[in-house]
Amino acid sequence: MRQPKPEELEIVKLGPCRRPSPLQSRGEPFVPDDRRVLATADPQLLSTYSDSGMAAPAFEVAGPRERIFFDPEKTTCGIVTCGGICPGLNDVIRALVMSLVYSYGVRRILGFCYGYAGLSLDSRCAPLELTPDVVEPIHAHGGTILGSSRGPQDVGGMLETLQRHGVGILFTIGGDGTLRGAAALGREAQRRRLPLAVIGIPKTIDNDLEWTQRSFGFSTAVEMATKAIDAAHTEARGAWNGVGLVKLMGRHSGFIAAHACLAHPDANFCLVPEVPFRLQGDEGFLALLEQRLAEKQHAVIVVAEGAAQELLQDPEHAERDASGNVRLQDVGIFLRDEIRRHFGERNTPVDVKYIDPSYIIRSLPANAIDAEYCLVLAQSAAHAGFSGRTNMVVGFWNRHFTHIPIGLVVGERKQLDPRGATWRAVLRSTGQPESMGAGTGAG
Amino acid sequence: MRQPKPEELEIVKLGPCRRPSPLQSRGEPFVPDDRRVLATADPQLLSTYSDSGMAAPAFEVAGPRERIFFDPEKTTCGIVTCGGICPGLNDVIRALVMSLVYSYGVRRILGFCYGYAGLSLDSRCAPLELTPDVVEPIHAHGGTILGSSRGPQDVGGMLETLQRHGVGILFTIGGDGTLRGAAALGREAQRRRLPLAVIGIPKTIDNDLEWTQRSFGFSTAVEMATKAIDAAHTEARGAWNGVGLVKLMGRHSGFIAAHACLAHPDANFCLVPEVPFRLQGDEGFLALLEQRLAEKQHAVIVVAEGAAQELLQDPEHAERDASGNVRLQDVGIFLRDEIRRHFGERNTPVDVKYIDPSYIIRSLPANAIDAEYCLVLAQSAAHAGFSGRTNMVVGFWNRHFTHIPIGLVVGERKQLDPRGATWRAVLRSTGQPESMGAGTGAG
Amino acid sequence: MRQPKPEELEIVKLGPCRRPSPLQSRGEPFVPDDRRVLATADPQLLSTYSDSGMAAPAFEVAGPRERIFFDPEKTTCGIVTCGGICPGLNDVIRALVMSLVYSYGVRRILGFCYGYAGLSLDSRCAPLELTPDVVEPIHAHGGTILGSSRGPQDVGGMLETLQRHGVGILFTIGGDGTLRGAAALGREAQRRRLPLAVIGIPKTIDNDLEWTQRSFGFSTAVEMATKAIDAAHTEARGAWNGVGLVKLMGRHSGFIAAHACLAHPDANFCLVPEVPFRLQGDEGFLALLEQRLAEKQHAVIVVAEGAAQELLQDPEHAERDASGNVRLQDVGIFLRDEIRRHFGERNTPVDVKYIDPSYIIRSLPANAIDAEYCLVLAQSAAHAGFSGRTNMVVGFWNRHFTHIPIGLVVGERKQLDPRGATWRAVLRSTGQPESMGAGTGAG
Amino acid sequence: MRQPKPEELEIVKLGPCRRPSPLQSRGEPFVPDDRRVLATADPQLLSTYSDSGMAAPAFEVAGPRERIFFDPEKTTCGIVTCGGICPGLNDVIRALVMSLVYSYGVRRILGFCYGYAGLSLDSRCAPLELTPDVVEPIHAHGGTILGSSRGPQDVGGMLETLQRHGVGILFTIGGDGTLRGAAALGREAQRRRLPLAVIGIPKTIDNDLEWTQRSFGFSTAVEMATKAIDAAHTEARGAWNGVGLVKLMGRHSGFIAAHACLAHPDANFCLVPEVPFRLQGDEGFLALLEQRLAEKQHAVIVVAEGAAQELLQDPEHAERDASGNVRLQDVGIFLRDEIRRHFGERNTPVDVKYIDPSYIIRSLPANAIDAEYCLVLAQSAAHAGFSGRTNMVVGFWNRHFTHIPIGLVVGERKQLDPRGATWRAVLRSTGQPESMGAGTGAG
Repeated sequence: MRQPKPEELEIVKLGPCRRPSPLQSRGEPFVPDDRRVLATADPQLLSTYSDSGMAAPAFEVAGPRERIFFDPEKTTCGIVTCGGICPGLNDVIRALVMSLVYSYGVRRILGFCYGYAGLSLDSRCAPLELTPDVVEPIHAHGGTILGSSRGPQDVGGMLETLQRHGVGILFTIGGDGTLRGAAALGREAQRRRLPLAVIGIPKTIDNDLEWTQRSFGFSTAVEMATKAIDAAHTEARGAWNGVGLVKLMGRHSGFIAAHACLAHPDANFCLVPEVPFRLQGDEGFLALLEQRLAEKQHAVIVVAEGAAQELLQDPEHAERDASGNVRLQDVGIFLRDEIRRHFGERNTPVDVKYIDPSYIIRSLPANAIDAEYCLVLAQSAAHAGFSGRTNMVVGFWNRHFTHIPIGLVVGERKQLDPRGATWRAVLRSTGQPESMGAGTGAG
Repeated sequence: MRQPKPEELEIVKLGPCRRPSPLQSRGEPFVPDDRRVLATADPQLLSTYSDSGMAAPAFEVAGPRERIFFDPEKTTCGIVTCGGICPGLNDVIRALVMSLVYSYGVRRILGFCYGYAGLSLDSRCAPLELTPDVVEPIHAHGGTILGSSRGPQDVGGMLETLQRHGVGILFTIGGDGTLRGAAALGREAQRRRLPLAVIGIPKTIDNDLEWTQRSFGFSTAVEMATKAIDAAHTEARGAWNGVGLVKLMGRHSGFIAAHACLAHPDANFCLVPEVPFRLQGDEGFLALLEQRLAEKQHAVIVVAEGAAQELLQDPEHAERDASGNVRLQDVGIFLRDEIRRHFGERNTPVDVKYIDPSYIIRSLPANAIDAEYCLVLAQSAAHAGFSGRTNMVVGFWNRHFTHIPIGLVVGERKQLDPRGATWRAVLRSTGQPESMGAGTGAG
Repeated sequence: MRQPKPEELEIVKLGPCRRPSPLQSRGEPFVPDDRRVLATADPQLLSTYSDSGMAAPAFEVAGPRERIFFDPEKTTCGIVTCGGICPGLNDVIRALVMSLVYSYGVRRILGFCYGYAGLSLDSRCAPLELTPDVVEPIHAHGGTILGSSRGPQDVGGMLETLQRHGVGILFTIGGDGTLRGAAALGREAQRRRLPLAVIGIPKTIDNDLEWTQRSFGFSTAVEMATKAIDAAHTEARGAWNGVGLVKLMGRHSGFIAAHACLAHPDANFCLVPEVPFRLQGDEGFLALLEQRLAEKQHAVIVVAEGAAQELLQDPEHAERDASGNVRLQDVGIFLRDEIRRHFGERNTPVDVKYIDPSYIIRSLPANAIDAEYCLVLAQSAAHAGFSGRTNMVVGFWNRHFTHIPIGLVVGERKQLDPRGATWRAVLRSTGQPESMGAGTGAG
Repeated sequence: MRQPKPEELEIVKLGPCRRPSPLQSRGEPFVPDDRRVLATADPQLLSTYSDSGMAAPAFEVAGPRERIFFDPEKTTCGIVTCGGICPGLNDVIRALVMSLVYSYGVRRILGFCYGYAGLSLDSRCAPLELTPDVVEPIHAHGGTILGSSRGPQDVGGMLETLQRHGVGILFTIGGDGTLRGAAALGREAQRRRLPLAVIGIPKTIDNDLEWTQRSFGFSTAVEMATKAIDAAHTEARGAWNGVGLVKLMGRHSGFIAAHACLAHPDANFCLVPEVPFRLQGDEGFLALLEQRLAEKQHAVIVVAEGAAQELLQDPEHAERDASGNVRLQDVGIFLRDEIRRHFGERNTPVDVKYIDPSYIIRSLPANAIDAEYCLVLAQSAAHAGFSGRTNMVVGFWNRHFTHIPIGLVVGERKQLDPRGATWRAVLRSTGQPESMGAGTGAG
């Protein structure tokens, strides 16, 4: 990935921090404002910076600051959750409330309902007052107690709602689109010189955000995905030429699919958006599947939902479906049908079982590793907000929680590197070849 | 359900039991051949029998017999698993092998592969020799180590295979079709005067077999089904007018759906084959769903796969689908689409999330309650086989493991009684009305 | 077990039922007051009754009655949970509240805190008002939202508290001691002619209550117990002469231990209170363990907490412990130490891993089978209370939910029958001999 | 922690790599031998190196090398697992075998039984031949199929065994002591100029090894630990002044305790070896517990097994125990008894439930995140071995799998930094004060 320029990593601040942090009374070891963690730990890459006399890019390290911008007792905080549900949302909400109340002494926290829709002027739903008692048991449950929705809302209207409620710090939990919305809100607030801090907590179950190693919910998703792979493996072995086919989340990146295959090494094929393949031909996927079945009489296939999009839009396949809505096609259904067609034409019986566990995965409560990550992310977000930072998200990089300008993460998507360590480990584990016919001619 | 006549409960025996059971040396308390458990424990019903001078129907109680028919050291046993996979298959296989070897001293047990196909003359797969070492770890895994397949095979061919391998007792684990095949095998063996005992171990994840209270895998299925309902509930609450729709197994009977709704009382609608309903009209399902969403902004629907078949075959709906394969339609997809259409026509946003957990459920290892049940079922089957009984299955009734003639269980399906205690408890728990428009006019 | 006399099964009623049930408007199929289920379904036993002209004992069948005693809109209901926590307590509380509110229209339900202590005159804790909103999410959590405590309280004081709050129906959820307290309350109320119905919901994780086949929490306990056995098995196999020792609940009865051994057949020894054994001697437990280790180098032992009490009180062992508190000794610790001593004396290395999962088991939320059972138990209890029945508990027998006089269940404890089907299945599964030296001389 | 000198990070190699890797035929993107990842990504620290003209310390990056040292077809590999069991051992064994066979074409892999004991000259147990078929299903099970043992064996004897079996690469999976043994073996082999590569795969469920961010099993341990905390919380809330006390693993470091408290934020006190505390006094633990109970009537305490060792060895407490074996005392039992004593002296009822889930945790199969980590660790170890590296372990640092000289990891233990981000997050989450009376006088 492209290394950012140091100035791209600078965080906007609403103003100077004049108040002592209430954490001072507890002897908290504060994080100095100039503490950084480098974007790269590769000595060769770093030496190119020093050779050219340039500073190497580095992220601000997150954590409590000795002096803060907002007056905790007078600052109303807002929380909003947007986009599809994801394990850990309630953990983030809970930890934000607990940190704001117990670390900073905040007296009023509002949870806006159903995503940005709850911030719009015509919201059908008043914000929920969030207290420690309200949020105490919620981490045991999946989803979000605030509800969610997709799509943007009018920035002016949202700002008006925030001002009406006197919100000083808004925590927005959501994915790429949500963060774009947060950035727009933050910029407009700055333009109007409103003292509003907008802190994003990135939510992407696919873990496809650049410059943050992890995203909450991803570990839980991989965990449950392995159970779906196990089901597929069990079904596949239960029948002669049994084929278990699992579709996993991953519209643009195959991280869930790849990591689930590493965590449950009974998968024989892992198909991801980053590595195109062909169905037909001697080296194509179907020929390899045929070979696998001839040898072992069963096979397990894991496919990310964004894989094979080039095949799905192939006019040949499109014609066969005859419904005009090619772009909406489901790669799992497509593969299931193509496998049946292929073996049907050869009079070879196959027994394909197709499993789509997406909603079961998304709605789980966070596992321990995600729960802990949510807690520290939220604590870090609370600290960042009170320090008057804005238009940033909280991330994790090279063993540190970090501050990242929103602009840096909404631009690009993180993807699997087909030459990188993760994908090579997948190839070694599944035993599938590096290339399945892609780049060699007929589809 | 119809009470059977006493003679319908008689079990066929291959001949007199002349050998002492090897369990005698362990001081085993044997079950006398005349021990019975009544089909009914209702004193009013029983008094009608005694008033009319008829014997009340009663089942043979299962368990080890003091004298046995087969010589354990010379008897080869066979095991075959048929039909769809189900939690507990490996537990049954394991417990059969352990009982046959350790209780009876059997020296040779063959596992026929891929269902009745493995018994056919042209099987592609030699039988597997099953020993305690082979089966020791298999209960931790779902599915069946023997593989399975659907559909009948030629009875003559199967008998020939069994004779070639010298099988004296065949344990067939499978559902309605499998048990029909077992009955045909048993009858043909008797006709030819072959000393072959055929013992069925009924497998129906739907728990829809008459005269047995439980079937293995059902409890595990209900357990996992509640997790799917929980996912649906979480998804539903995460969106404005969120609708979580879960399709569960149950082609002819709604037991899994009903018990899952009792076990996870967040479901608002439970739709089963036994209770028809209408979609349209003031009292129809869609109007009730509308009402629920207006009140609570979310709803959870659980539907058994065999529900609403009369609606699916309705020419009106059939026409709309335009593909000619009406009878194959999936009730989950159908309901999802109908809900979207209904609310779409009213410009009311709904967010339907459809979950089909069937393969994930079927492929689980058995939970504790099923594992235990499998163990005792298999021990009972081993005892029954060695006593020379044939054309029977093992069941459970009024607190006892029982012997049931195959003929009695393959005839009819157990179904929910819409006036019975289970369904009434479901209605009270979901809050849905007794009738949703069925029998009142327009569909 | 002793068959009760028919008059012992009669349920006390506060008076005639003059009000129509609110369920009439829903077309509920009511249960007639004379519906019964026989205590036995054994035709031989039944014929001894008919031969002697006596009526066979039968339980009232539970369920909604057409006419009720209490006026739902004016009746305050009380709920109290007593004794150790058990999976399903919150399910029972939730289902009681939901049934009382939605089936009967009750307007005020009080949850008394910390067991009978919350009913005493000097309770530190006001009762909690229970509504559907309060109880909606509680079934996801173990324990009891009401808290619990052990031990009796003054009956007069409790009655005074109940009268002060105007409680008409009190639901007491607890074990043997709790039910004795409930019976005392009910009797005293009758003596004083107070219109108070006392309905017990039996809670015994050990499932050791007579005349009810199941108790809630037991299935969850067995499920988690198998995980502890699995841990013991894994630890045992990880070391040369590894011994995994698991202590399970069961003070007077070994049901959890026995059923867990059936559900997880890797246990090699199952030790229960009902089957005494000896440690020493050629046929004693330690010699058998030695033999097992010599053959397989690992062993798994499951012991119920009430097993081996006669050994623990043996002066020989007592002396060795030198601390004076013999009666409090923990059988798990005792066995662990005896095994180490025995093999130590023989210079044979053993590696004993002792696991006591009791609190982890007790505090789980109910699994699906228990959750469903809790729901229907609670619905049945609500119906029973409104019908004016008192001094009874709800049970389950021969496929029906039943009413049982409290007096019948607090007298005796259900135990494993050493000659019965369950224990024989355990012996066949573990491979342990019927007797381990007991009755043959030296301890 | 002390930054290592660059020369401390150099890996010993048996000799030049003259053979092409068999992975060349698959187009594998090899890792160059000079690729490094820096020990620190802190730009301030790095600038001190560059200011002083010194090279900053950096680790070799793991991965397949283009040229290898050993001839795969002629090299026998050995695997041994030592010390206590830990989730993931079977995953490592499985992935080693799969990598060695499928990536390198190794023909003979020996699993030595019961730890270093299986390498000793008087081993009672022949090595197990490990093939893909043998290891295929083992990752579903906890523990190690090879068995394990503690303690060192004679180095000369072990070398003799290895030579007798012709082992070229030995993979040793174990903790600090095991790695010391591996280092001794490796050094002795080098001294004797034997072509033996010794590759360590560090196993520490406590995650207390320096210079590697993660160790396998740790994530699974934290996950299960949260379930024990949940049980403690449920028990605590079920009783008036209920106290749930959980002891977790961590002899020298409180990582499991700390991370479990972050992952399950219902804990009120987290006690770890790194942060001493006092029991008595106004600011001591018992006074704080008293305060908590007065406010909330329940409390949850998590204690690492190595915490409070200074208190356990305090003569005052030692005297009270009167048994002479002070050093073996269990901190969980100690705290339980001290709490009971403290409140008993004040006539305040408390109900302490003590939970020790250690064996249940250790024996679990790896969760997904650990399973994946095990897979890539093992693949990395296989690559390192074939490249002729020796006396090293595989680690993970700043987003890369690395090679670390054994000597660097066996010297020191990683511990929680009481001023660091993790411990501060724990304090904020539990609400406990920074110091509980330590350093202020009376114990």
